[in-house]
Amino acid sequence: MAEKAVVLLSGGLDSSTALYWAKSKGFRCRALVLGYGQRHSREIISARKIARLAGVPLLEMPLRMPWLGQSSLVNSARPLPDMPLSRIGAGGIPSTYVPGRNTIFVALGISLADASDAGAIVVGANALDYSGYPDCRPSYYRAFERVAKLGTRSGSEGRGIQILAPLIRLNKARIVQKAFGLGVPLKWTWSCYRGGNRPCGRCDSCKLRKKGFQEAGLQDPAL
Amino acid sequence: MAEKAVVLLSGGLDSSTALYWAKSKGFRCRALVLGYGQRHSREIISARKIARLAGVPLLEMPLRMPWLGQSSLVNSARPLPDMPLSRIGAGGIPSTYVPGRNTIFVALGISLADASDAGAIVVGANALDYSGYPDCRPSYYRAFERVAKLGTRSGSEGRGIQILAPLIRLNKARIVQKAFGLGVPLKWTWSCYRGGNRPCGRCDSCKLRKKGFQEAGLQDPAL
Repeated sequence: MAEKAVVLLSGGLDSSTALYWAKSKGFRCRALVLGYGQRHSREIISARKIARLAGVPLLEMPLRMPWLGQSSLVNSARPLPDMPLSRIGAGGIPSTYVPGRNTIFVALGISLADASDAGAIVVGANALDYSGYPDCRPSYYRAFERVAKLGTRSGSEGRGIQILAPLIRLNKARIVQKAFGLGVPLKWTWSCYRGGNRPCGRCDSCKLRKKGFQEAGLQDPAL
Repeated sequence: MAEKAVVLLSGGLDSSTALYWAKSKGFRCRALVLGYGQRHSREIISARKIARLAGVPLLEMPLRMPWLGQSSLVNSARPLPDMPLSRIGAGGIPSTYVPGRNTIFVALGISLADASDAGAIVVGANALDYSGYPDCRPSYYRAFERVAKLGTRSGSEGRGIQILAPLIRLNKARIVQKAFGLGVPLKWTWSCYRGGNRPCGRCDSCKLRKKGFQEAGLQDPAL
């Protein structure tokens, strides 16, 4: 019997690639997507499509967190950063940071994993070509693994829950190459922070994605 | 300006005492209560009352977690444990364990604390007279403090978020004494796992509470 995994899916390039990676490793996957009032709730539609194409059940978690209004990823009255590629991730935590978003996402993953005897949580986080969020770093996920070990039935009974971040040390070009290799339906992934019908091309996420495809010498099927 | 704290409130004896403790220490408090389909959703009404009496704003978080059906604290078709007091907490994790519930609760607290510049999360957990849940132990909260340090803006900027568990090493009698000393409106707290209109007296939580009042030589105002 294949081991079970909970995949934290946002519908973007990274988490979709992480899902296909988990499938390629033989995990029986369930995916989880969060609705937290993100301005690009468009990504949830992508998550549904990706999960369907991957043949993986998707659980959608709507959360009402009225305290997130300072984040420009939630409050569309706040401008999104539009900075040169070289400065993305270098100038401290950007306004798109959503306080505790990944922490809540992983916590829900731990709950689902502990309830369903899944031995792994799979995340698409990467700490190289990223916006500079603190909750994308390897040390953060290692600390969370310890929380899972100490705070769950699974951990208490010696099975434990691993947090797997297969992309965490890859740059965007290598993630793009991996996505192609794994057959990720990239056409349906959504990375743009702005939402809308077409990627804006100007937000951090669009710029990092574009850089990845350029460096990999590949065409973005979503454009 | 007093430091801010996020108090994880369930409306029971322990978390209500933790709230009054935080107030007594001069924290400016906000409380958070979870609705996760618990059979004793009656406790949310208590949390509202306690927060109002304490003069503290309360945020209610409804969560839809369909994977919790194995827990007898959520699935009322499953019987609640009814065991001798001496065996409570001693026989492994009981059926009332809700996978990841405290992990999600703390994660939401981290999000709220990071968004509102609160330096502390206050929890009523105690690891002495308790049902035997893994997510009540000191080591678990210490590990979570590290997650908060590594994964938040607050931690990145050197302020950090402490997790304070003022009751964690107290037995129930000492918690009851502390509650009286702090003026906790115990009449309105709700501990019973079963819900309903009156505490059942037979679940782990009722038995532990009763033991606490007996050993403290005090009358439970909620009975």
